[in-house]
Amino acid sequence: MRKLILFIASSLDGYIAGKNGDISWLFTDQDYGYGKFFASIGTLIMGKKTFEVSLTFGGWPYPGKKCYVFTRNKHKNDSRVDFANNPVRLTKELLKGHGKDIWLVGGSKIISILLNAGLIHEIRLYVHPIILGSGIPLFKNIDKKINMKLIKIKTYSSGLVQLHYKII
Amino acid sequence: MRKLILFIASSLDGYIAGKNGDISWLFTDQDYGYGKFFASIGTLIMGKKTFEVSLTFGGWPYPGKKCYVFTRNKHKNDSRVDFANNPVRLTKELLKGHGKDIWLVGGSKIISILLNAGLIHEIRLYVHPIILGSGIPLFKNIDKKINMKLIKIKTYSSGLVQLHYKII
Repeated sequence: MRKLILFIASSLDGYIAGKNGDISWLFTDQDYGYGKFFASIGTLIMGKKTFEVSLTFGGWPYPGKKCYVFTRNKHKNDSRVDFANNPVRLTKELLKGHGKDIWLVGGSKIISILLNAGLIHEIRLYVHPIILGSGIPLFKNIDKKINMKLIKIKTYSSGLVQLHYKII
Repeated sequence: MRKLILFIASSLDGYIAGKNGDISWLFTDQDYGYGKFFASIGTLIMGKKTFEVSLTFGGWPYPGKKCYVFTRNKHKNDSRVDFANNPVRLTKELLKGHGKDIWLVGGSKIISILLNAGLIHEIRLYVHPIILGSGIPLFKNIDKKINMKLIKIKTYSSGLVQLHYKII
């Protein structure tokens, strides 16, 4: 069965970006398993703000993958992505389909919608050795307790820790 | 030199207690290194709410240790603890003194005051495999970025992960 995987980085205090969207604290000195993960997924889903951030990276960072962007508003067409306005419905459809796993890229709002809907199967969180104090929280407006099983953990010499959970 | 160590447990989404102070999700099936840590410290400091929670545990959980409780209000005497109203000043004094390390037990408010004052040397955080969604946050009102060095990590079969950081 296809899985929906939240693969994301945060500070120790749970921010995915600092003040004014600052992501300069994210480690980029190594691949940290990204290449292998990217090869394992077939489809990406993300919110509109996350999409807009990805457009600032220079080249399009997700070539060759099916990519859906959730937005409630009309958006001018972009050949690299499809826009959709009902994340729960589309995610359910994608999960029923065949193919490689689905990467939930972010951000906060879409993560909370899909966690609350019980649609996320795994969380792979890269905890950075920093406390940011403010910014965009990874978890916000989660309306229930969610139990998980720790599948794996990986530590890097930079101090990065990858926590890999399965949602029960 | 004496160190101030924040030794504490949280959910993956950074709560030290759930709604209505719920701590039923904390693992208590093993010692998880607590006994060794408790033997290594000489003094405990905590906020008043944390103190009040500790009084509900049955017997006094911190026998044989010097214990300070921070409160802005008058408090009726308690032979097991000393009350103090200036956490930064007292902590600085304690750190200048001799003796075993100091355990910062909690909670949220006192952690933020001492982190912002740059007085915490190490964080040992027990991340539980659960998302609570709401409750008392571990980190709140932190007013600056704090860089850390990962010293050690320990994983338990229950899914508990201990992240041990040194603050730079």
